[in-house]
Amino acid sequence: MDMQKEICDVLAMVREKKPLIHHLTNYVTANDCANIALAAGASPVMADDPREAAEMAERAGAVVINIGTLSEQSLEAMIAAGQRAVAKGIPVVFDPVGVGATNMRTRAAERIVREVRPSVVRGNMSEIKFLAGLSVDIKGVDSAADEAGAEAVALQLAQQLDCVIAITGKTDIIAQGRKVCRIQNGHALLASVTGTGCMSTTLAGCCCGAVGDPFIGTAAGIALLGIAGEMAQQSLKSDEGTGTFRMRLIDAVYNMNADTLRHRGKISLQLCNPETPV
Amino acid sequence: MDMQKEICDVLAMVREKKPLIHHLTNYVTANDCANIALAAGASPVMADDPREAAEMAERAGAVVINIGTLSEQSLEAMIAAGQRAVAKGIPVVFDPVGVGATNMRTRAAERIVREVRPSVVRGNMSEIKFLAGLSVDIKGVDSAADEAGAEAVALQLAQQLDCVIAITGKTDIIAQGRKVCRIQNGHALLASVTGTGCMSTTLAGCCCGAVGDPFIGTAAGIALLGIAGEMAQQSLKSDEGTGTFRMRLIDAVYNMNADTLRHRGKISLQLCNPETPV
Amino acid sequence: MDMQKEICDVLAMVREKKPLIHHLTNYVTANDCANIALAAGASPVMADDPREAAEMAERAGAVVINIGTLSEQSLEAMIAAGQRAVAKGIPVVFDPVGVGATNMRTRAAERIVREVRPSVVRGNMSEIKFLAGLSVDIKGVDSAADEAGAEAVALQLAQQLDCVIAITGKTDIIAQGRKVCRIQNGHALLASVTGTGCMSTTLAGCCCGAVGDPFIGTAAGIALLGIAGEMAQQSLKSDEGTGTFRMRLIDAVYNMNADTLRHRGKISLQLCNPETPV
Repeated sequence: MDMQKEICDVLAMVREKKPLIHHLTNYVTANDCANIALAAGASPVMADDPREAAEMAERAGAVVINIGTLSEQSLEAMIAAGQRAVAKGIPVVFDPVGVGATNMRTRAAERIVREVRPSVVRGNMSEIKFLAGLSVDIKGVDSAADEAGAEAVALQLAQQLDCVIAITGKTDIIAQGRKVCRIQNGHALLASVTGTGCMSTTLAGCCCGAVGDPFIGTAAGIALLGIAGEMAQQSLKSDEGTGTFRMRLIDAVYNMNADTLRHRGKISLQLCNPETPV
Repeated sequence: MDMQKEICDVLAMVREKKPLIHHLTNYVTANDCANIALAAGASPVMADDPREAAEMAERAGAVVINIGTLSEQSLEAMIAAGQRAVAKGIPVVFDPVGVGATNMRTRAAERIVREVRPSVVRGNMSEIKFLAGLSVDIKGVDSAADEAGAEAVALQLAQQLDCVIAITGKTDIIAQGRKVCRIQNGHALLASVTGTGCMSTTLAGCCCGAVGDPFIGTAAGIALLGIAGEMAQQSLKSDEGTGTFRMRLIDAVYNMNADTLRHRGKISLQLCNPETPV
Repeated sequence: MDMQKEICDVLAMVREKKPLIHHLTNYVTANDCANIALAAGASPVMADDPREAAEMAERAGAVVINIGTLSEQSLEAMIAAGQRAVAKGIPVVFDPVGVGATNMRTRAAERIVREVRPSVVRGNMSEIKFLAGLSVDIKGVDSAADEAGAEAVALQLAQQLDCVIAITGKTDIIAQGRKVCRIQNGHALLASVTGTGCMSTTLAGCCCGAVGDPFIGTAAGIALLGIAGEMAQQSLKSDEGTGTFRMRLIDAVYNMNADTLRHRGKISLQLCNPETPV
């Protein structure tokens, strides 16, 4: 499989299919997620009341669940929407923001993983390690990631949960079964803007809503954000900073095309040895 | 009535009166609505707990109700605030975001229309058609509008609800009684940014809060957003996109004056034949 | 104490310590608060469910409580998180947005002041006057401030609540005990963007999370926003407005350093006469 080529085709599919991406997400970055989904060509909707979430999910091309600002009520909506989506064969992308930081988030994430069985889980190294049951120091939601062993952790959790696992950081790792995709795009400035993790989850949702394979879709969405981050950073003048960077990130996704992805993408696929225990 | 001239005067009235615009709205675009209200010269406040909503509404120049991210609790606040406003003669502008997409939204919109009796309802073609009881295909909140017959639909619902109806799309239609105002400003890029519908509702609220006639106020608010959209689009350089466009939309409203409105406005008024059944 | 020098050192401390700033805040400006905290070098987190708020607060360098869009549930979370923080010696910065506008806000602010006993309260003149029990005309949250007597009001409330009081306006006043710091930075355009008050509270939180003295921390945070406002305004071209200004505010904080603070800061400290009744 030529991963780079596969990914380059995904953006055109998003723009053609304009999938409805149903978000159950936090109020801090919901606007950014909606705008980046529109910039990619998808059609975002936010609905997180338990009385309408499952019904909305049925119409969606993909469902994005993000526990950044969780409440008891929104958790019920997440589970109802997620279960309905899975029952209908609609991909569910889960972002376990801050899992491990409080008992409530940890229990919520565990319920979502167990009761929804999402197609994709995307987090930073600390969040994915925590979900994988490894001990980890967590400080807030923008935890520094230790990349050593990220691949092994991703493969292990992908096997545990039978889904696609994405760990974003300096190098992004996307794992499923015995496949590992590494993406070396992105820029450190992405960590200085709120919601860039949420936006990469949203873009993974947009791509999964347009392409059949959630491994390809997740890799494409994460590559999109990383490349947009590079373009946004390169456009900055000396007196510009993270405010401008955040805006240019949306611009870059809006102006992205297959050529940009092809020329800028640093994407590699690797199959791990079936003899190697993961 | 010289509609264009009337509308040109409204913006100055907003800036002079600085009406308090009480929003009961969604968390996705609340920041954009607040900033565009400030850019127009109004004073926004958001308060959607049932324990304070009606009290806040009493202080307002206009109340804006938007069901973009509805909850059981916020619906009660919307109805309480809307009813109090109507009782006090304060205009209520209602945006039935996504009505028809779920049963919850449909029932909520029906309750608001019936129990509050808003002065103005603004939506896209699908939403207004749905409220008017016509069959319609709905996909999310950014539904493509079929403009044929928009005028007839607007007139019909305006008569049914005895209020001002605004349908925004390629051509915006504002109807009340037998009057129809058509606005041919705007740009397709407005559909690629979240909340531009919400912002036009907010601007209609700002203008209704400053001018006695809700037909004039609604037309003025919608014209403002359309013209700002044109100005924002024209300002874009080739590597800029929807992120920059969203910011320039606020800039354009902030820098708008009666001259801009006069020179750019494509606004026409028409009285439909009293013999024509609507 | 050389206030100007003390304040110049604080920003470097924020960038070194990267304190976690736990926000219990409104959904209108949460994104701006998160981004300005990141621009200053801190690490923001938002969590306002009563089931996790206190636990999150324990991890924080400072807790920011803002009642801009209050609900019954978020109030319980604010009190639980605030009390836990105070018990652990973590500074709590309180922004009583719109206190006096509704009974619910007034009672909520009174409960927070009494039950949490925050380290810092920041508001505009109307809000602080109201808390100090003085009669005051309140219109929404962006009330015009009458600056005459601001110092006396701040000193009085600082004594009543035994905390730091900050009144922001044309001249910002920070009072504690018999100390008064006056800051004459800022620009009128700050009043035309939503959330600049919230952002100054957030920056006060970031600085209090990095420096031991909440008087210094609050003054530093408020000076940061005022200076950023001047820089953002000076950068505007003639066709730019409040949309661009808001973005440049974040840029300016991101690019701020001790030199900028030293050259631009208009900060003075004064000790009021111990004989003068306050």
